[in-house]
Amino acid sequence: MPYVNIKVTGGREAPSKEQKAELIKGATDLLARVLNKNPATTVVIIEEVDMDNWGMAGESVTERRKKG
Amino acid sequence: MPYVNIKVTGGREAPSKEQKAELIKGATDLLARVLNKNPATTVVIIEEVDMDNWGMAGESVTERRKKG
Amino acid sequence: MPYVNIKVTGGREAPSKEQKAELIKGATDLLARVLNKNPATTVVIIEEVDMDNWGMAGESVTERRKKG
Amino acid sequence: MPYVNIKVTGGREAPSKEQKAELIKGATDLLARVLNKNPATTVVIIEEVDMDNWGMAGESVTERRKKG
Amino acid sequence: MPYVNIKVTGGREAPSKEQKAELIKGATDLLARVLNKNPATTVVIIEEVDMDNWGMAGESVTERRKKG
Amino acid sequence: MPYVNIKVTGGREAPSKEQKAELIKGATDLLARVLNKNPATTVVIIEEVDMDNWGMAGESVTERRKKG
Repeated sequence: MPYVNIKVTGGREAPSKEQKAELIKGATDLLARVLNKNPATTVVIIEEVDMDNWGMAGESVTERRKKG
Repeated sequence: MPYVNIKVTGGREAPSKEQKAELIKGATDLLARVLNKNPATTVVIIEEVDMDNWGMAGESVTERRKKG
Repeated sequence: MPYVNIKVTGGREAPSKEQKAELIKGATDLLARVLNKNPATTVVIIEEVDMDNWGMAGESVTERRKKG
Repeated sequence: MPYVNIKVTGGREAPSKEQKAELIKGATDLLARVLNKNPATTVVIIEEVDMDNWGMAGESVTERRKKG
Repeated sequence: MPYVNIKVTGGREAPSKEQKAELIKGATDLLARVLNKNPATTVVIIEEVDMDNWGMAGESVTERRKKG
Repeated sequence: MPYVNIKVTGGREAPSKEQKAELIKGATDLLARVLNKNPATTVVIIEEVDMDNWGMAGESVTERRKKG
């Protein structure tokens, strides 16, 4: 019955449909393997966050990416 | 003063403006009825999640819907 | 398949077990009524937040409650 | 290592890129000042919520704004 | 730079310290493998939810567990 | 009407009541200053996360703190 929320950067860094499917499968398997959770009721929600909206170390990812 | 966050599938399954208004009203009423919470300070946020980004039972809703 | 997260104040204001059951039932019914969502896969998570940890209008609920 | 999530109304009320940068900087500084948290590992995520999807006092912000 | 939030039932079903470490490692590895995300900046937060506070199919996990 | 959620490590690193009040005041002021948001309807929720439940770089904060 676990609930997993994954936030990643979107836009040009957004995961493809196939990658999202892998994340869903991988997170569900992880909960089944480590905690024996039932995959049937495991929920995974992926959120894509604009790079202007994600900050680390006091600046946006947009700015961080520019610096390489 | 409660805070309610409702996540539902978006895209072609997205709620209409009227349905969103009903969810907001209904969730606010629920908190007032059960816990006597003040509607004036009850916050409701609805998030629409792309069907590729929502997984259950190890696969995306997109895949689940295909199977009917 | 909706996911509902309800945050309310805890401590001496925490909902009873019966009230939590009513919130779970009420939120699940709301999604079924308004959006025709399947109750079987509707998840509701209630979080109780300490009154020192919840702020509104720039001060904690603890302070607000003192003022009545 | 703190994680800060800021939800604000989007659409025509959405913050500009510069305002987002200020929010990220400001939240990171706040955690450093009050709790001596390391800015390098402070994460800030800003989410813009459609005005139809945000409710207060039982109605959407869209409706509230109409009333002024 | 991903952020992963995992909610599981707590109390007598709470994961052990070792299991939590496995979840953190596993989620970080998943993001590195599928999306090539840098493990150094991947954040994982595990939340344990009381079984009275988690509902599915309109009733709490406490009630569901009684029915087996 | 913004909503701010701040997650920090708890336990022996938990903020004091005074520090929580400063975070609430500071976050509310930040939103008022940058986006001209009304402090009266700004909500701030602080969550304290156990150091075993918070991971970064693939290991828990508990482990990271041991290494200094």
